[in-house]
Amino acid sequence: MKKDEHIWKTAITDARPNSIRLRGYRIDELMGRIPYSQAVFLAFTGRLPNEEEGRLVDAILVSSIDHGATPPSTLVARTVAGCDVPLTSALAAGILSIGKAHGGAVEGCMELIGETVTMADKEGVSIEEAGQRIVAEAEACGRRLPGLGHRYHTADPRTARLFELAEECKFSGRHIQALKAIESAFAKSKGKKIPINIDGAIAACLCEMGFPSSAGNGFFIIARTTGLINHILEEWAREPKMRKIFPDSAVYDGEGDRSL
Amino acid sequence: MKKDEHIWKTAITDARPNSIRLRGYRIDELMGRIPYSQAVFLAFTGRLPNEEEGRLVDAILVSSIDHGATPPSTLVARTVAGCDVPLTSALAAGILSIGKAHGGAVEGCMELIGETVTMADKEGVSIEEAGQRIVAEAEACGRRLPGLGHRYHTADPRTARLFELAEECKFSGRHIQALKAIESAFAKSKGKKIPINIDGAIAACLCEMGFPSSAGNGFFIIARTTGLINHILEEWAREPKMRKIFPDSAVYDGEGDRSL
Amino acid sequence: MKKDEHIWKTAITDARPNSIRLRGYRIDELMGRIPYSQAVFLAFTGRLPNEEEGRLVDAILVSSIDHGATPPSTLVARTVAGCDVPLTSALAAGILSIGKAHGGAVEGCMELIGETVTMADKEGVSIEEAGQRIVAEAEACGRRLPGLGHRYHTADPRTARLFELAEECKFSGRHIQALKAIESAFAKSKGKKIPINIDGAIAACLCEMGFPSSAGNGFFIIARTTGLINHILEEWAREPKMRKIFPDSAVYDGEGDRSL
Amino acid sequence: MKKDEHIWKTAITDARPNSIRLRGYRIDELMGRIPYSQAVFLAFTGRLPNEEEGRLVDAILVSSIDHGATPPSTLVARTVAGCDVPLTSALAAGILSIGKAHGGAVEGCMELIGETVTMADKEGVSIEEAGQRIVAEAEACGRRLPGLGHRYHTADPRTARLFELAEECKFSGRHIQALKAIESAFAKSKGKKIPINIDGAIAACLCEMGFPSSAGNGFFIIARTTGLINHILEEWAREPKMRKIFPDSAVYDGEGDRSL
Repeated sequence: MKKDEHIWKTAITDARPNSIRLRGYRIDELMGRIPYSQAVFLAFTGRLPNEEEGRLVDAILVSSIDHGATPPSTLVARTVAGCDVPLTSALAAGILSIGKAHGGAVEGCMELIGETVTMADKEGVSIEEAGQRIVAEAEACGRRLPGLGHRYHTADPRTARLFELAEECKFSGRHIQALKAIESAFAKSKGKKIPINIDGAIAACLCEMGFPSSAGNGFFIIARTTGLINHILEEWAREPKMRKIFPDSAVYDGEGDRSL
Repeated sequence: MKKDEHIWKTAITDARPNSIRLRGYRIDELMGRIPYSQAVFLAFTGRLPNEEEGRLVDAILVSSIDHGATPPSTLVARTVAGCDVPLTSALAAGILSIGKAHGGAVEGCMELIGETVTMADKEGVSIEEAGQRIVAEAEACGRRLPGLGHRYHTADPRTARLFELAEECKFSGRHIQALKAIESAFAKSKGKKIPINIDGAIAACLCEMGFPSSAGNGFFIIARTTGLINHILEEWAREPKMRKIFPDSAVYDGEGDRSL
Repeated sequence: MKKDEHIWKTAITDARPNSIRLRGYRIDELMGRIPYSQAVFLAFTGRLPNEEEGRLVDAILVSSIDHGATPPSTLVARTVAGCDVPLTSALAAGILSIGKAHGGAVEGCMELIGETVTMADKEGVSIEEAGQRIVAEAEACGRRLPGLGHRYHTADPRTARLFELAEECKFSGRHIQALKAIESAFAKSKGKKIPINIDGAIAACLCEMGFPSSAGNGFFIIARTTGLINHILEEWAREPKMRKIFPDSAVYDGEGDRSL
Repeated sequence: MKKDEHIWKTAITDARPNSIRLRGYRIDELMGRIPYSQAVFLAFTGRLPNEEEGRLVDAILVSSIDHGATPPSTLVARTVAGCDVPLTSALAAGILSIGKAHGGAVEGCMELIGETVTMADKEGVSIEEAGQRIVAEAEACGRRLPGLGHRYHTADPRTARLFELAEECKFSGRHIQALKAIESAFAKSKGKKIPINIDGAIAACLCEMGFPSSAGNGFFIIARTTGLINHILEEWAREPKMRKIFPDSAVYDGEGDRSL
């Protein structure tokens, strides 16, 4: 070990000449043995997932891989790509648009769910009761409820599918129950249902698996990097430089509907 | 279809209210059925990988997931994270440091391999002969040979493992042969071996699977996003704000050596 | 005017073919007639500054132009520049490190000053009394006081000079008084003086001139862009690619001390 | 001086506790004595400008301060700003769109001018003859001529004004002559005039003042930072979050036409 005052510690990867270990495992041993999604789980948690965790993490990553030409991150990445700059410049610009208003609700929703479960535990009330109190408090102080509502979908198919998978994988516990309680209480208060969105469903599943809220947005960003990069490559392949990009004017002309 | 002059086309994802299809497949159908890496392959190529392609793409992504505290992207992401800014700011800054000098050699190496194979085909010479000519030309005009040499590893275990897997997956064809020919010719010219690095091995495998060179750096960046995000989260969890980050002073204190 | 639903309005610059007007003035008329700093003032406020305002804005911009090799933004911009990427990538990465913890205290300090002056007005107390209450409240709820203290300077010469100029320019009013009241109250509470830093001095001067707090960090960032760009150019001119950059190891070897 | 192997040198700013010197001058002495633009000149060149240089640098910076809602950098900065992220995120994204295709032609044009003047000197031909050869060579190998043509203006008023000022300031020498020779030769070859744009005019003036081409894009970026920041602040002040931003749909509603 180095004897100097500037030493700092890291527990992620031990990189030495001709040896690279992620959380203790040789990366060359992991290669060909585990899928990438399990290495992601390992990087975040320090352990390999069991089969159910692995399946749920894959579903979370697949759900967020792309959303076509509608999100601001896509429009930004394509606009910057049109300016004859490197891939990393266009990608970084797209990522910078991910925040509370777009793609960044997972973390806040995980905090909300955590508060609800904690309240139920501490005050000895049911999850439903805790959800009602959390919604009432949020409305009283004008706090938004991240994880509810989508400007595009009214019944996001990804949300339903993720909850279905969570149940199959035995992860349908108190955190998912808490978010559903919040959804119900909010619907009652508003007089109409503002459904759980995909960010909310991801948040609930990550809570079920024990992830801290700080990790929440990371999964969305990792997954969406693939979508943004493909939009940048398509912009370069199909469009002239410096074109004006109009939102709402994209038309899908790819593969027709098909099934696995 | 919209009747306006601003229409542009995209073949990646068809996002409509309550329906999102990636390259024709419903994302909610893909969830729970394919691992994330296969969705990545689908996004790039428009089709699902076969078993061998899927395994090789997973190995490529796992190989690049992190490299500890040594790369400039890690140091940059951590320095920015220490300034009390959002995750996306620190991540974008890290990504901006990925270029020809760090993590960005895949694309250039794919072009080099492509030129070698094309020359062999067009001029009716062996891959070995073509590799010698390409190296001679590169040296004559001072062109660097991306994919060879590493400032850290002399025998990168990831490189050997990736070539081993390529062979297992029946992807050990003329493109890998071409890069090895370039390595040999360069060693003869220099009087010492400058070994193929992980970027080179990834480049050769992507060529074998038929990817265009423009996609090359994308795989590295997608994979490394996970590493960068975990370094940012660790910086926040373990270090004070605005600390000075000294390269070479990181000490690994995580999980001990272990095996699958 | 366009007849479409997508119209949006902007009051900054009217750019038409062969005519560009900033806040109503032809840019070609402004060229050669006003210094850049006055055009900055015009862009922010919609009017040209008087002589005193112009002088104070110039002093603010000059004060923030660079701080050598110590700030994280400099180290980040140089590290990214060393990776063989465009100027804009290195500059953007440097800018992304500017936040509450570095260079971004102006806005928060302007809000603090504004609250103090408003309290004095609304509750009919003296600025000194309001400053004491604001500090007491901040300490009670663990709120930081932006604009006080510097990790590097104990008697920042820029702060004293800026207050001197503010007095010369007749801008030494209630906002500067408020910040000094906060400094005094905090010193009394802490038992030692935590002096107003340059961010604080800029904040007080911008308040005196009537700028909204949202504009605060902008001046620092505009000014520092010059410093960051020069560090990037120097990195390219003097250093090898991919070098390791050690904080605290920079030695100044430029022009010797001189005077106007 | 530190005795360690990690020492690196910088000649820009000497920052010590309670003393900050830019190129040898105390920043607190410069404050109130020189306008910001002269400090920019000092940062780049290591000396203070004379009156003519100062005036020309101010004109260059003023010319580039903003171009309304048309450039991609503005649209990108506003789109990102609409996503509820910090000022620096939106600004960095805007800056990342500045490249060869937008705002980044100054450097390339300076190189072009430099080659022309060097050819005239080395081969003993007139500037006009050298300009013709450079254009012929560029056309032969498909090289673009940066600094000519604008997608928006046919007679950019900033260009004419900058050349007028250059003449007033006695900077109308061989570099401006070279760019005009290139413009003429290109017009003759194309059969129609592709006029020098503002990037070209700035490039010629920076060459006249002796700046290296690497500094070229820096002036545009420094100046435009002000425009981008004001667009971000206006987006926040006037528009809802996550709005769709349509290019070509911006209408100016600011101050009416006025004169100094």
